[in-house]
Amino acid sequence: MTYGVALRLDCGIVFAADTRTNAGVDNISQFRKLHYWRRPGDRVIVLLTAGNLGISQSVVSILNEQLAETSGVEHNLMTATSMYRAARIVGDAVREVRRVDGEALETTRSGFFASFILGGQIGSEPPRIFQIYSEGNFIEAADDTPFLQIGEHKYGKPILDRVAQSGMRLGEAAKLVLLSFDSTLRSNLSVGMPIDLLLYERDSLDVRRYSRIYQDDEYFKKLSGSWASALREAFGKIEEFKG
Amino acid sequence: MTYGVALRLDCGIVFAADTRTNAGVDNISQFRKLHYWRRPGDRVIVLLTAGNLGISQSVVSILNEQLAETSGVEHNLMTATSMYRAARIVGDAVREVRRVDGEALETTRSGFFASFILGGQIGSEPPRIFQIYSEGNFIEAADDTPFLQIGEHKYGKPILDRVAQSGMRLGEAAKLVLLSFDSTLRSNLSVGMPIDLLLYERDSLDVRRYSRIYQDDEYFKKLSGSWASALREAFGKIEEFKG
Repeated sequence: MTYGVALRLDCGIVFAADTRTNAGVDNISQFRKLHYWRRPGDRVIVLLTAGNLGISQSVVSILNEQLAETSGVEHNLMTATSMYRAARIVGDAVREVRRVDGEALETTRSGFFASFILGGQIGSEPPRIFQIYSEGNFIEAADDTPFLQIGEHKYGKPILDRVAQSGMRLGEAAKLVLLSFDSTLRSNLSVGMPIDLLLYERDSLDVRRYSRIYQDDEYFKKLSGSWASALREAFGKIEEFKG
Repeated sequence: MTYGVALRLDCGIVFAADTRTNAGVDNISQFRKLHYWRRPGDRVIVLLTAGNLGISQSVVSILNEQLAETSGVEHNLMTATSMYRAARIVGDAVREVRRVDGEALETTRSGFFASFILGGQIGSEPPRIFQIYSEGNFIEAADDTPFLQIGEHKYGKPILDRVAQSGMRLGEAAKLVLLSFDSTLRSNLSVGMPIDLLLYERDSLDVRRYSRIYQDDEYFKKLSGSWASALREAFGKIEEFKG
């Protein structure tokens, strides 16, 4: 399992993904699920992946091969003229993997399953985030719901629902995203640290704030502890049920 | 979908279940999923149901038919000598329904699926809670995890994980359970109000606090509002991410 989230703000985008993959609970590994491409001053494109690791690695490999000058592919992540075009390129890569592996995977219980969050900024476009499905089609986050989640999204959603606002600062939104991870990590063993965290600042057209948050990270430990106490304290202040 | 939860305390048990059932989003009805049987001074037995409504209603019908003097059934919920025996009676009823409907349901995409929480107190035994599966087998909640959940359990679990303690008062635990519902109702449309809530006081061997909480319930509205503000306030107090 995986947990990945992107939160689109007026001032940029916060991306986060865990790094645990598993084939059964007795076969756990660490893999990167946050990938990015950039050309400073022109574009930053970030991809979070969830689902079958074989599929998502193949998608990333295809996207990278397209960037090689010798690939002969006309449209790639570096030539895409908008984030919408970039999402179509990723969707096409998913469909290519399905052509190769789909039939074999569909015979298994888990099927052909992968999902992606693609986000970033190209040139003068505002930052945008998309969710791309196993079928290669996609949706874009709009103002009503400024965040997208992939993988094990349920445990971490209540806090996002109540607190996420597009007016937040990057550091504030990163705190929120880490709290959403904290709830998820407590409940689903197949989501595991470290967490890859990327704070994209609007119009910077570069990646300047990228961190990998480990189990023993001081900020994360403090965040998790303070939040648990704050919740208990808030709980204590509310009137009991008398019925 | 359904959400049902039982929280076992030193001073009793809190049970809650929503009342929405649906066959697709365009076919929604209200059905009771919290059932109880009692003989004051002797026993209180509460059953929460989730999953296929046909299965869970059949299980309840079988349990009720067993209670008719003419049924000729030796063991029923009123003669069971312990909650463990009562759980076996419910498990047997699930297996009986499977014998009748299992084959036909297994050919469908949703399969033969139902789950149950059974709890209560019989005579001088302490109050106990069990989770009973589609296969008719079951587990009992122990001190490490004093609550059990069925149905759409993920959204409402983080708050239970952080706050639930067996030393809570009944009214305090009911507040917690309603907050867990609040998170779930916001995220899953197929879980719907009203909520049936039963607060069983240890050794009372009777049902004295049973309420149905409707959408416009003043306490629930206040709870939901206060909790959202308390969460945002607690969030604001924690240091931002600086990395």
